[in-house]
Amino acid sequence: MDQASGLKKRLIDIRSNKIFELFVITVIVISALKVGIGTYPLGPKLTAGLKVLDYAVTIFFLAEILIRMAAEHNLKRFFSKGWNIFDFVIVTASLIPIDESEMALLGRLLRIFRVLRLVSMIPELQVLLNALLQAIPRMGYVSLLMFIIFYIYGAAGSIFFAEVNPTLWGNISIAMLTLFRVATFEDWTDVMYETMQVYPLSWMFYLSFIFLVAFIFLNMMIGIVIQTLQSEHEKIEAGETTHAPEMIASENPITAPSIDARLARIEARLENLTDALTTVPRRSAT
Amino acid sequence: MDQASGLKKRLIDIRSNKIFELFVITVIVISALKVGIGTYPLGPKLTAGLKVLDYAVTIFFLAEILIRMAAEHNLKRFFSKGWNIFDFVIVTASLIPIDESEMALLGRLLRIFRVLRLVSMIPELQVLLNALLQAIPRMGYVSLLMFIIFYIYGAAGSIFFAEVNPTLWGNISIAMLTLFRVATFEDWTDVMYETMQVYPLSWMFYLSFIFLVAFIFLNMMIGIVIQTLQSEHEKIEAGETTHAPEMIASENPITAPSIDARLARIEARLENLTDALTTVPRRSAT
Amino acid sequence: MDQASGLKKRLIDIRSNKIFELFVITVIVISALKVGIGTYPLGPKLTAGLKVLDYAVTIFFLAEILIRMAAEHNLKRFFSKGWNIFDFVIVTASLIPIDESEMALLGRLLRIFRVLRLVSMIPELQVLLNALLQAIPRMGYVSLLMFIIFYIYGAAGSIFFAEVNPTLWGNISIAMLTLFRVATFEDWTDVMYETMQVYPLSWMFYLSFIFLVAFIFLNMMIGIVIQTLQSEHEKIEAGETTHAPEMIASENPITAPSIDARLARIEARLENLTDALTTVPRRSAT
Amino acid sequence: MDQASGLKKRLIDIRSNKIFELFVITVIVISALKVGIGTYPLGPKLTAGLKVLDYAVTIFFLAEILIRMAAEHNLKRFFSKGWNIFDFVIVTASLIPIDESEMALLGRLLRIFRVLRLVSMIPELQVLLNALLQAIPRMGYVSLLMFIIFYIYGAAGSIFFAEVNPTLWGNISIAMLTLFRVATFEDWTDVMYETMQVYPLSWMFYLSFIFLVAFIFLNMMIGIVIQTLQSEHEKIEAGETTHAPEMIASENPITAPSIDARLARIEARLENLTDALTTVPRRSAT
Repeated sequence: MDQASGLKKRLIDIRSNKIFELFVITVIVISALKVGIGTYPLGPKLTAGLKVLDYAVTIFFLAEILIRMAAEHNLKRFFSKGWNIFDFVIVTASLIPIDESEMALLGRLLRIFRVLRLVSMIPELQVLLNALLQAIPRMGYVSLLMFIIFYIYGAAGSIFFAEVNPTLWGNISIAMLTLFRVATFEDWTDVMYETMQVYPLSWMFYLSFIFLVAFIFLNMMIGIVIQTLQSEHEKIEAGETTHAPEMIASENPITAPSIDARLARIEARLENLTDALTTVPRRSAT
Repeated sequence: MDQASGLKKRLIDIRSNKIFELFVITVIVISALKVGIGTYPLGPKLTAGLKVLDYAVTIFFLAEILIRMAAEHNLKRFFSKGWNIFDFVIVTASLIPIDESEMALLGRLLRIFRVLRLVSMIPELQVLLNALLQAIPRMGYVSLLMFIIFYIYGAAGSIFFAEVNPTLWGNISIAMLTLFRVATFEDWTDVMYETMQVYPLSWMFYLSFIFLVAFIFLNMMIGIVIQTLQSEHEKIEAGETTHAPEMIASENPITAPSIDARLARIEARLENLTDALTTVPRRSAT
Repeated sequence: MDQASGLKKRLIDIRSNKIFELFVITVIVISALKVGIGTYPLGPKLTAGLKVLDYAVTIFFLAEILIRMAAEHNLKRFFSKGWNIFDFVIVTASLIPIDESEMALLGRLLRIFRVLRLVSMIPELQVLLNALLQAIPRMGYVSLLMFIIFYIYGAAGSIFFAEVNPTLWGNISIAMLTLFRVATFEDWTDVMYETMQVYPLSWMFYLSFIFLVAFIFLNMMIGIVIQTLQSEHEKIEAGETTHAPEMIASENPITAPSIDARLARIEARLENLTDALTTVPRRSAT
Repeated sequence: MDQASGLKKRLIDIRSNKIFELFVITVIVISALKVGIGTYPLGPKLTAGLKVLDYAVTIFFLAEILIRMAAEHNLKRFFSKGWNIFDFVIVTASLIPIDESEMALLGRLLRIFRVLRLVSMIPELQVLLNALLQAIPRMGYVSLLMFIIFYIYGAAGSIFFAEVNPTLWGNISIAMLTLFRVATFEDWTDVMYETMQVYPLSWMFYLSFIFLVAFIFLNMMIGIVIQTLQSEHEKIEAGETTHAPEMIASENPITAPSIDARLARIEARLENLTDALTTVPRRSAT
């Protein structure tokens, strides 16, 4: 058992080793480059070389994930992190031998996702991604409102314009794709001019849609800016209340409490003094 | 009468029942999906099924609005809310039997607007919509200025370029539509190159227009951001003035008023003391 | 002379009359609508009617400007306002009889600019326009930097790509117009793909240009937002320092100065007391 | 040696002379205009004139840089500034005689970069450029994340769509260029419709890509706005702490420290007084 725990310690050492981490990142970058090079037409020798490289990378990733799993106290804790599950799926999926034409595409796609392991390895990217994920709920109801608008315009568009151009307005999902195209201003006038020949007033449909979408989008953006600013402001405020006393204490030691303590002492002394004076003089007067 | 008020209570209970609200939302979503499915080519069986579903939804909406009307104290109060009027129009309009080809389109359009009832049912969307509506007046004069610019450029464009391309510059309304296209950068160079063959300096027309519109638009956006930030800031400020005293009181009980009260007491005591001392010694001196 | 000054008073009354102002705005709107209607093909009767309307508007504008000039103390003061000069030029220029084909275009253009008189009549629009004009100097050096970048890329573009497509890159001014087109993302890939056939690496030219322009533009926008926020903040700050004392004074009358005055009095009293006590007891001791 | 130092002084005088600086800027502008004019087709006389002008500008720039080098204490210090190195490279490179067709292009390109010397001569532009350069590191990890997304989508795109359109998706670098085109909304639907004919669900590829890129881009922008606002805020805060005491001191001289000093004196006096009183009366009592 001692041997096992000694091995575990060594594995933990390896896992948290900076050089090992750098090496893992290097292998991920190499695997990414391999994927990139694989999209160019290559000679048979290079293709074979890339295949060997792919085997090596797969084996290394397998070894790395086994080290990380062994270094963890138990498997439950290992799988509690989302990125670990992601890594595990990517590594195990690449182990399945794929050589048939159909599966080959999926296998290549899986190898692309290995690039995402960079995000799990570089902490700064993980922080960034978390910040991005946190920004999503803020846009929840705005997205719902946007979807309702797309749905209504899509339904109306497919009802009116389906006969004008079925490839653009054939059904509601195609119509919504066309509306997204209009929202990106991508050749939207071509779409409009076509329907205007049948419905001359259909420019109202497009303009009202563009104004609505632009208006909601801008307001959403402004809303996010203000929300973020406010939450940042609150963080600063919260930080200032904890820092402020220290700062005041260190810079000028004369704070309100000290003034009050001094005044209390003065008052007490005066009280004693008055008592002493109003009793003593009488004695001296006698 | 007791029976009637008992019924009313039950109706109010139904109206404010969470499960009933959820059920209404479900029906709205179903009616929305029905509208979406209706845009696809369907077999005669499905079409018939959708028709039955449409009848069911219409009857349910009628029942629901009658419950809400009966639950309200009087009709005036019911119709004082904008969304109630909207719901009433949508529901009553769907009751009109429409089967002729001309009206069918309008009937289908009306059924699309039912999706908007989602906004009236989900409070968060209503809040969002109100916020959006409140943002409109802020853009009032900027919109007017923008319209003046479009009008002037539209008039100038139709005067100069009408003979170059009547479909783009034929009259002022077409010209303004073309200008909106230019403002969205949609194939605007095609429009420009065409007029530049007749008027080589017409690029100045387009560039000045784009710069003006972009400049006003950006300033409007920045203005809205700042206005919103300020109003949010003022809200916070107003909130802080009411919170601040409490916070100070709870955190450090020694505030200026207490210091002043203490000083007043000290001063009074000293005054008495001086009076006592300046009279007493004299006596002791005698 | 009394009669003259009486007339002047009446003219000033007319000028500042709300109903007269509204009437002027109405005439401007009518003249704007006239310009708009004039861009549609009209029958001879309507054309004649519009001509009469144009005469009426011109005469009214002449009368109005004469009233405003007479109501002013002297002509110097009248011409000291920019909008007055603008109005004067527009009105006098429309008096010149223009019926020849060449000048007719210019005459129609002049009539369009009458719409701008709306800005000079509606104070809110004037405020808006002033705010916009004030925002221009903020962008001075950024515009210069942007121009330098356009100039350098324009020169490089016309040197390298002039032979690929002379209509897009023929000389530096055409090249800069093409670059503006690229900056608005308007069919910029068509421009790029064309030059990439001769210079395969020319995508670097476009991408670096787009990144540079987008980067400077975004930073300029952010800079303006922050500058505006700061100046607004300073205004609020300045406003608060004048308001703050009042607020403090009204809410809690016990301020630092009063505390200090009280302390000074206490100190003085104590000093006297000490003097009295340290001399008196000695006497009483003797 | 005295003569040399006298010459140096004169050179320093010339260098820091406002008129000389203005003259250098004028020559740079002339050289920029020369580059611009050179892109137009010119007669042989003008071409010869421009050549002479080019020689004159080159000689002037050589003289100017020699003056600046001589005015500096030593060459090391001269080359420690980035802009000096830039100027030196530009000037020396223009000295190389280039008349062959191949090198002529490079020579003309070098002459364009002379325009950038404007930035090194106008301090405001240098400040602006430094501010822009400082904004780059803020976007470091966001750029990396963006690149990873482009890389993954580029690899996936070239794997799936390479056979659909090799000129757009042939290999990963072409695919990434196409994705950049999609990100700028430039005829992106043409790209999408083409692949949708083979892979009907490929709209998910484009939409997810556009949403991801737009989402990250917007968040980056918002992040920069907030970061800049915060750093500006901190600057103001830091500035206020140094200004605030002065302001308080000048406006109301009664500050907390003075109150405390006064209280200390009162306390000391009272202590002495009490001592005096509690000892004296005893004596007087005896």
